[in-house]
Amino acid sequence: MDIVVVGSVALDTIHTPHAVGRDLLGGSAAYFALAAATLSSVGVVAVVGEDFPSEHLRLLDGHGIDLEGLERRPGASFRWEGEYGASLKERRSLRTELGVFADFHPRLPARYRDAGVLFLANIHPDLQREVLASAGKPKLIAVDTMDFWIRGALASLRAVIARVDLLLVNDEEAALLTGHSALPEAVAAIRAMGPGIVVVKKGPHGVVALGPWGWLALPALPVEDVRDPTGAGDSFAGGLLGSLAGRDWHDRDAVASALAVATATASCAVEGSGVSALALLSRTGLRERCRRLREMTRFELPGE
Amino acid sequence: MDIVVVGSVALDTIHTPHAVGRDLLGGSAAYFALAAATLSSVGVVAVVGEDFPSEHLRLLDGHGIDLEGLERRPGASFRWEGEYGASLKERRSLRTELGVFADFHPRLPARYRDAGVLFLANIHPDLQREVLASAGKPKLIAVDTMDFWIRGALASLRAVIARVDLLLVNDEEAALLTGHSALPEAVAAIRAMGPGIVVVKKGPHGVVALGPWGWLALPALPVEDVRDPTGAGDSFAGGLLGSLAGRDWHDRDAVASALAVATATASCAVEGSGVSALALLSRTGLRERCRRLREMTRFELPGE
Repeated sequence: MDIVVVGSVALDTIHTPHAVGRDLLGGSAAYFALAAATLSSVGVVAVVGEDFPSEHLRLLDGHGIDLEGLERRPGASFRWEGEYGASLKERRSLRTELGVFADFHPRLPARYRDAGVLFLANIHPDLQREVLASAGKPKLIAVDTMDFWIRGALASLRAVIARVDLLLVNDEEAALLTGHSALPEAVAAIRAMGPGIVVVKKGPHGVVALGPWGWLALPALPVEDVRDPTGAGDSFAGGLLGSLAGRDWHDRDAVASALAVATATASCAVEGSGVSALALLSRTGLRERCRRLREMTRFELPGE
Repeated sequence: MDIVVVGSVALDTIHTPHAVGRDLLGGSAAYFALAAATLSSVGVVAVVGEDFPSEHLRLLDGHGIDLEGLERRPGASFRWEGEYGASLKERRSLRTELGVFADFHPRLPARYRDAGVLFLANIHPDLQREVLASAGKPKLIAVDTMDFWIRGALASLRAVIARVDLLLVNDEEAALLTGHSALPEAVAAIRAMGPGIVVVKKGPHGVVALGPWGWLALPALPVEDVRDPTGAGDSFAGGLLGSLAGRDWHDRDAVASALAVATATASCAVEGSGVSALALLSRTGLRERCRRLREMTRFELPGE
């Protein structure tokens, strides 16, 4: 197994100007795993309730995703309901029911401990620390977080950040975490907290990353018809680590290629409702999107 | 002469958290001309008053910028005073005194009419139309504008946009001009209004452009210590057209290279107060910044 992801698997009800999707397969670990599975083998550590539809499990299984770490518990699955505004830029949560996720304590099956990559999706930093305490020796530990934990569990979060190789944030989180509103300063300050690589997801504005080799940056692929932005960040992370698995994260070219794959994966994820577009992404489709990204960004130096 | 710019030459008083600069050389045409002059020959059409410091004129002249089109009139020069907040992201205007600019009607000297590139900087669209009526047959006409004219002079502005080859806007202006909050839609809608190329300046988020060859996009260069964002957009435009002069704007590679030069030029412009950093930018420095930009964005396709 290349990658283990620890996060949520949920039932999402999503309102967009286009449609309402009810009890869709959702959660950070589901988006991440489907995205990463295009290029690597993935195991999921999460919990669902008795009510979780078997068709969702079959979809994950059908993509070769290992579900030994996915606990099924008495009770209701984590449910989230949200609504997007007309521009699909703002969203508000209508309902969050934690269900069995409320008592979730992630447990890694024995054979997950040899995975080369460990991804701690956006869950309480205390749970992320529990996983770090029980994990083996992955070559790359990556973590995602959100403003909620920066505001509410900063000490625990900083303990996590100090121990990981790669941190994913968005630009607002980077400012919140460091007090620097200028992104280059904020990113440098986060890197000084521990992670070798800091990756800032800027949604439609692309990605910026700082690592031992310096800065990397790519624009987003223009998406002419965004259907549902849910899970774009987790899909980005899945593409990134799916591409990095088996490679050395100290290698600039490996990370640059992984950022391109991540960008391509996220552009696909938002084109369908829930995981629908992501679930159809093939290696060929991914490569084609990366080719478009390169065609968009390729330039000759002046005087060449 | 490669390029003619029609715009403002002004005296700026700029308050930043770092310093206050008084009666600095400013105005869209001054930033543009200094930026474009690194790669091309430029003539300026603008107006200043009797009070305009000769040292500012010497600076422009010392960069080989042709000042035959710069009228000197009885009265006061255009003065602007503005203040930036702590993050240098927000600014407010403290004072705007049009002076001799209030009655400005641009007149192109006869030998300016053979220039291959005409740039209409951000001035009233009625003035931009006057210039278009008296211009020769430039191979490339480019125009910049701002939200103020979109709100206050839309019909006139649309008549300008219908006649130009390249329009520069920022993302808010693109949304305001078209009613589309999603950038890809907005840009496509603007292109349908006439311009062969639409260039969206996104400041620290880089640039996106749509032309006959499809999309181009580049991230911004990270600037660790922004000193003064004034004139960044005009410097961007100057780098873009300075690079495009003498080349064919239908050629994707020419425009891609020009966008890189524009990105590099703007990153330099914000590193000094007023035009101070821009005025020191050499071809070698420009090339080095473009090389950094390529190093940041270069990636291998997955499986390569």
